[in-house]
Amino acid sequence: MQRIVVLAGGIGGARFLRGLKKAVPDAEITVVGNTGDDIHLFGLKVCPDLDTVMYTLGGGIHEEQGWGRADETFAVKEELAAYGVGPDWFGLGDRDIATHIVRTQMIDAGYPLSAVTEALCTRWNPGVRLLPMTDDRVETHVVIDAEDGGRKAVHFQEYWVRLRAVPPARAVVPVGAEQAKPAPGVLDAIASADVVLFPPSNPVVSVGTILAVPGIREAIADAGVPVVGLSPIVGGAPVRGMADKVLAAVGVEATAAAVAGHYGSGLLDGWLVDTVDADAVPEVEAAGIRCRAVPLMMTDTDATARMAHEALSLAEEVRV
Amino acid sequence: MQRIVVLAGGIGGARFLRGLKKAVPDAEITVVGNTGDDIHLFGLKVCPDLDTVMYTLGGGIHEEQGWGRADETFAVKEELAAYGVGPDWFGLGDRDIATHIVRTQMIDAGYPLSAVTEALCTRWNPGVRLLPMTDDRVETHVVIDAEDGGRKAVHFQEYWVRLRAVPPARAVVPVGAEQAKPAPGVLDAIASADVVLFPPSNPVVSVGTILAVPGIREAIADAGVPVVGLSPIVGGAPVRGMADKVLAAVGVEATAAAVAGHYGSGLLDGWLVDTVDADAVPEVEAAGIRCRAVPLMMTDTDATARMAHEALSLAEEVRV
Repeated sequence: MQRIVVLAGGIGGARFLRGLKKAVPDAEITVVGNTGDDIHLFGLKVCPDLDTVMYTLGGGIHEEQGWGRADETFAVKEELAAYGVGPDWFGLGDRDIATHIVRTQMIDAGYPLSAVTEALCTRWNPGVRLLPMTDDRVETHVVIDAEDGGRKAVHFQEYWVRLRAVPPARAVVPVGAEQAKPAPGVLDAIASADVVLFPPSNPVVSVGTILAVPGIREAIADAGVPVVGLSPIVGGAPVRGMADKVLAAVGVEATAAAVAGHYGSGLLDGWLVDTVDADAVPEVEAAGIRCRAVPLMMTDTDATARMAHEALSLAEEVRV
Repeated sequence: MQRIVVLAGGIGGARFLRGLKKAVPDAEITVVGNTGDDIHLFGLKVCPDLDTVMYTLGGGIHEEQGWGRADETFAVKEELAAYGVGPDWFGLGDRDIATHIVRTQMIDAGYPLSAVTEALCTRWNPGVRLLPMTDDRVETHVVIDAEDGGRKAVHFQEYWVRLRAVPPARAVVPVGAEQAKPAPGVLDAIASADVVLFPPSNPVVSVGTILAVPGIREAIADAGVPVVGLSPIVGGAPVRGMADKVLAAVGVEATAAAVAGHYGSGLLDGWLVDTVDADAVPEVEAAGIRCRAVPLMMTDTDATARMAHEALSLAEEVRV
């Protein structure tokens, strides 16, 4: 049985995983999920990326939106607004809140996030092993210009959701990452993997945050197995989201080739770019990363499964 | 301006207060609310009686049900059940949950319940000053027979809601009451009141619990103003709820006269019984409590306002 480790952010990662499961239904897939986006709202611990993966693979996702629950209602949010209690910019639905209530109760009772995630997954049966990157608290902050001419840091969700990534991101800081330890099972899964995949997730605030947890990048580099990524940038722009905004903060151009170079040949063995970026292939290969141009639009699960097949084929090609 | 203090439980107290406000719209009404029914559910602090008063007077109550919010939905409750997380017997609606989230956040931030209640009331504008009986934790437990032939104590809500008051109540214990202090404002309100009213609330687990907070009973007895109650028992049975079950636990018959005797002439100056209990009047008066028989069914706000008028008239009669 093929063992695959996937580092996943939210929507892009979750949709890729659905295609991967369809492509290789018998594979044993371990997902290392980003928790840098986690936020405490109204006393509840919210893990947007873990939940997006769980809901998407478990059949509970709001399909069009890509995050949150299907058939969602917003009575609690309306009432909190009526009390004048904020923030009001985070779309916390009623069904979603139940997940956060269960999670917060378990965390308060002393369970680590990894155990909580496992418990939540017993309901959703995502068909993958979903692990948070760490049980420790890591919070991605984005540094932007302050009104007084200086700089200030805001929580990633505030930057992404409230500010819609409009202010230029001067830096992205995964606060707490340096002190964090990989969650139980993460390093073992990587060490025993046959292949490691980077889905077309945000290379800075999703995959990058996971790689910022000491030990994870090293474990991937040392695993001696193919590491293949899929470009989240197609034709010089993110397929979805606002990855270009945070790429700028780390000095990386929003091109398929530049993102491959950002990961680097020390980490990445293979890289898929979209067919519209076929001219990037020689540049990526010159940097020591095997590269193929294939359709990378996750228009439906079949198209995504074909992308997953291409990634796994490239992994076999680069296997030494 | 007439200053009225009312000791209130949940539905009966709240409905009476609506009538009282209609009867004397210019009066300054302070409500001392029972908090012995409070319960922690899913990490949230729930204050059923305070909320019933607040929602009823603030126009947010589910009218037919008498508790909870109008136009309520139950998405969170359904989802918690889907996670297999209980208890499932408490009807926690989505709109209601927002109240508990705001309350819990403020409590966790260090605010006493009295300050939290005041903050919540800035939204609801109940038209009365609503005070919890205490800021300290008091929890009414009901002692019932255990399966092993012994006794066990269950939380009042478990007895009332889950067990529907079916098992005989052997004792009612307001756990923590002895160590509790009246909330800020309670004793002052009583000391400066022109009249104190006991609405037709449960004499054991509502009014009785409030009176169990050291200092409150004494303050009422010492205030030197008329104290008038309305019988929650009509024709030998509770008008609503299951007051007879908990009256049995304290050795009091479920009759209008017996409840008056339970409060006692040391506390009570006047007592209203329903017209069907007119024959109880001599017995109550013989016990030193002025008594009148008037219609006591709170069929609508007008009928309830007439009850409030009768109570205030009786207060004037007994005023020395």
